[in-house]
Amino acid sequence: MQRAPDSPLNVADIDQLAGGVLAGDRASLSRAITFVESRRQDHRDAAGQLLNAVMPASGKSLRLGITGVPGVGKSTFIDALGVLTTSQGKKTAVLAIDPTSGRTRGSILGDKTRMARLAVDPLSFIRPSPAGDELGGVASMTRETILLCEAAGFDVVIVETVGVGQSEHAVAQMVDFFLVLMLPGGGDELQGIKKGLVELADMIVVNKADGTNKGLAAQAAQHYRRALHIIEAKSAKWAPPVLMASALQGDGLDEIWTTLATRVQSMRQTGELNALRNAQGHAWMHADFVRRILAWLDTRSDVSDLRKELKQRVSDGRVPPTRAAEILAKLITEPNT
Amino acid sequence: MQRAPDSPLNVADIDQLAGGVLAGDRASLSRAITFVESRRQDHRDAAGQLLNAVMPASGKSLRLGITGVPGVGKSTFIDALGVLTTSQGKKTAVLAIDPTSGRTRGSILGDKTRMARLAVDPLSFIRPSPAGDELGGVASMTRETILLCEAAGFDVVIVETVGVGQSEHAVAQMVDFFLVLMLPGGGDELQGIKKGLVELADMIVVNKADGTNKGLAAQAAQHYRRALHIIEAKSAKWAPPVLMASALQGDGLDEIWTTLATRVQSMRQTGELNALRNAQGHAWMHADFVRRILAWLDTRSDVSDLRKELKQRVSDGRVPPTRAAEILAKLITEPNT
Repeated sequence: MQRAPDSPLNVADIDQLAGGVLAGDRASLSRAITFVESRRQDHRDAAGQLLNAVMPASGKSLRLGITGVPGVGKSTFIDALGVLTTSQGKKTAVLAIDPTSGRTRGSILGDKTRMARLAVDPLSFIRPSPAGDELGGVASMTRETILLCEAAGFDVVIVETVGVGQSEHAVAQMVDFFLVLMLPGGGDELQGIKKGLVELADMIVVNKADGTNKGLAAQAAQHYRRALHIIEAKSAKWAPPVLMASALQGDGLDEIWTTLATRVQSMRQTGELNALRNAQGHAWMHADFVRRILAWLDTRSDVSDLRKELKQRVSDGRVPPTRAAEILAKLITEPNT
Repeated sequence: MQRAPDSPLNVADIDQLAGGVLAGDRASLSRAITFVESRRQDHRDAAGQLLNAVMPASGKSLRLGITGVPGVGKSTFIDALGVLTTSQGKKTAVLAIDPTSGRTRGSILGDKTRMARLAVDPLSFIRPSPAGDELGGVASMTRETILLCEAAGFDVVIVETVGVGQSEHAVAQMVDFFLVLMLPGGGDELQGIKKGLVELADMIVVNKADGTNKGLAAQAAQHYRRALHIIEAKSAKWAPPVLMASALQGDGLDEIWTTLATRVQSMRQTGELNALRNAQGHAWMHADFVRRILAWLDTRSDVSDLRKELKQRVSDGRVPPTRAAEILAKLITEPNT
């Protein structure tokens, strides 16, 4: 029975839904994700119970993050990569994080249109970005959706983001391997790479390396190799490679997939993957805890009123920021003084 | 009258001490800093009143951050740069941030020995790193010490840090201009540059560009220029230059000082400096507020006990990090449920 997501769930419903997810039923998975993405507290509570029920079946996928600026050919690349993995029999899910999209954009139709082959692939599952303006909240939903997809038997979960704002940092913190797509070009075209983007990469792929772009792509690849050379590596055991691809022509995808899958397999065997996921989980828990505490503090008018006044006094040079923080914190830590 | 820093201050004392600081009296400045660095609440309160009294006279210096790995010649460089600025009649203060130094290291004697010429310069003031293991707290003290030095009439305040850990991020957030010292060398020697260090720089200086090192220094400078070229600039109005120096021989210091002083003067005239300092002040206030709230939460045994249990459940894959955060936050946000 289909039930609209605005109706409450009872325990029997949750057991049934969890069973559907664990059986790999797509309708159940979609509905479960809708509860994870809901802002209603009863839905959030239901989602929590659901996650508790399916958690033991999660954790087995390869979690792959992909980012790149608009125009880099991200959809075409993910479409081609997804078709490659499903052709190997791997169930492949594609999730998006785009906190700026809002409710009207990033529709399922739009996502399915932009990944035309994967959208009709029976082994694939494409889910657009959840609505929301606050990155922390949106990213938390996506993190839980990864777990649901894993419980539903997906072998590869691709999380994509447009890489504007801070979303690429959030994605890098929830995946096993982070792939950064770059455009061909040299010199001035390379300027303006976002702060820290290269440093998040486990692999850089220069896409659109086809036709007259081939020379420029090789030039860009050489630049990124040099940049990576003088940046401290994320892992002592992995020097991020720079590869080239033409997603449009299907060139380079095999090598990219083999390279990254081999690396993640090696991380799994050495325990590095488990350590990484533990560290990510604890860091995420802490960040989410801080986010919730700050959001709660923001609902208190005494805090927001005093904060506004203190910010002005800091701007006017009448109080050092450190003292302003101390005064504001005392509202919470010493409420009776 | 000299008063030991462990005796309480009364209002008359504070007025007197503020007067001494504003008159540029070094003994008063030293004593005022001692109160800022104290952990005793009555001292902290006295420091707060003192800062309120001298704040109107602060803000007029050029705040310069300098970092570099051990062995880069940081002390020699700051000694040479300080002698240059004092020779122009500019009162110059040198503060250090080294959260790992502890109480026994980083003594005044040590700091004065390592900057031999500046230590005996009547226009200079050298203050070692305050004791403390927690970067946030140590950095807050240094931030307030900058204000005291400005109130005491210092024209240039140099904040140095060893650039291990996160201290260089803290320093970059409290200065007008951030200078990163690098060693000569090419290829492998350039590997392992700390994440984000190049991106914090308003200027990179390759030091020790003397004798047989000159060629290597030029090579390193070229590498850093390329790296800066593909990294988004901190300011749309400033492309961080890469210069060379031999602090030991005094080469390059004039150009470095002229370049950075001209840039800060331009920021002052266009309003960019004021906007930067406001943004730094507000960000610092927020970070310090969060730090204080989290420190207060850490003193609550119910929070720490539940956090420990939840972290284990996250590690065991029994609860998603987001749910663990929600459960933990409810201790604070919904204490009566």
